Amino acid sequence: MNAKAESDRLRVVLVRTRNPLNLGAAARAMSNFGFFRMRVVSPFEPSFREARSAVGASELLANAEEFKTVAEAVADCTLVVGTTAGGRRNLQLPLRPLTEGARLIRKRLVAGPVALLFGSERTGLANEDFCHCHWLMRIPARQEHRSVNLGQAVAICLYELVRDAKAALPREKQNLATAGDLERVCEVLFDVLRLSGYMKLRYGAPTKEKVRRMIRRHHLSCGDAEAWLGMLRQILWRMRAEKELSSD
Amino acid sequence: MNAKAESDRLRVVLVRTRNPLNLGAAARAMSNFGFFRMRVVSPFEPSFREARSAVGASELLANAEEFKTVAEAVADCTLVVGTTAGGRRNLQLPLRPLTEGARLIRKRLVAGPVALLFGSERTGLANEDFCHCHWLMRIPARQEHRSVNLGQAVAICLYELVRDAKAALPREKQNLATAGDLERVCEVLFDVLRLSGYMKLRYGAPTKEKVRRMIRRHHLSCGDAEAWLGMLRQILWRMRAEKELSSD
Repeated sequence: MNAKAESDRLRVVLVRTRNPLNLGAAARAMSNFGFFRMRVVSPFEPSFREARSAVGASELLANAEEFKTVAEAVADCTLVVGTTAGGRRNLQLPLRPLTEGARLIRKRLVAGPVALLFGSERTGLANEDFCHCHWLMRIPARQEHRSVNLGQAVAICLYELVRDAKAALPREKQNLATAGDLERVCEVLFDVLRLSGYMKLRYGAPTKEKVRRMIRRHHLSCGDAEAWLGMLRQILWRMRAEKELSSD
Repeated sequence: MNAKAESDRLRVVLVRTRNPLNLGAAARAMSNFGFFRMRVVSPFEPSFREARSAVGASELLANAEEFKTVAEAVADCTLVVGTTAGGRRNLQLPLRPLTEGARLIRKRLVAGPVALLFGSERTGLANEDFCHCHWLMRIPARQEHRSVNLGQAVAICLYELVRDAKAALPREKQNLATAGDLERVCEVLFDVLRLSGYMKLRYGAPTKEKVRRMIRRHHLSCGDAEAWLGMLRQILWRMRAEKELSSD
């Protein structure tokens, strides 16, 4: 990744990090490899910005953007990638080895902002975090000892992103929908499904997660998201109107 | 590197390490990537073996071999490689980028033991350490911020050593929906849109074409197509039921 513009489009998102030293280590690795946009979601330690491990990257850490939810932290991104040690539970999403994943991320950084998510030291990313991801990426650690330290995991992933910078070919601009657009589509779709009785039929929460994951798999363009919003809003409007009439 | 014998020939040599947490982190990364022979030369903290950062690798750390000099620590090795942030002073030795260096190390591990040296956090390897090296290797960090944390440097170098060997993970079968499945989704969607008034609003035929193209762009799997059919049929059923009620 030569172009500064492209590395500037990566958001390294650290979710519910417990140890501030890991946030500092992540900041240092980011600076080493030329990535400067750190985002944190509900850090365990509010005073993380002073972590001494951010050697040479204290400004980067001080400028980290803080969010309450993953949804807000990735709202402006056109691709959201989760990292995982790769247990059984994540099999609903495509799981890519790091080399392949990094290649895809590099391509997509040409077109728009990409979020790379890292979960907490103890539990990694949770299922509700995975719902916001398009796919997952795994560091090829031994099966018998898969759990990589958080600071080291960030360093390895970012190294892989810059390692083979010349391999990144310019892609046609796709103009993809942002995570915020997708979430708006999901919200209206949930309203429609609720009104139709589908949610009750299928036990609300798990259905929502499934639908969120599916919508993200569809790779909607901005225009697609707009088209879906238009259709779903019209359906919602009509269902509400009929409901009122029938209850008169 | 598939062969266990080969990874067993690598000695990770940590020279004058100051912070025991970095020794622990190095041990953890070694275990993650399947290297078990740690050697330490004059560690700053004699009680380093208890470092809590060696999560899942405490035995490896406890079994680290301790030496007084670099000469003794690399005595049995047929290749000795130093790592450096890459300042001016090292120009007496060939300096290889990590990808190239790792490739050479992998080749040499087939034949005999290889030592990979990491210097202290403050000063790196000294000139007298370099004398024992055949060549040097550098992590491609930014020129403006070259100093990589020791634990992260070890993790990145070892990752690079195993990267290629394990890159080819089996990919999940995608099991895409057939054209017939997609058409069924479209037909129910058209019914819903017609009932909602959306079709009249947007001039039927061109809208249909657009929606068909869009659905095909989404690359639905069999499961996705089934999920959409389920949702849309429920919506259609409810809209028809309400319409009947309201027209009574």
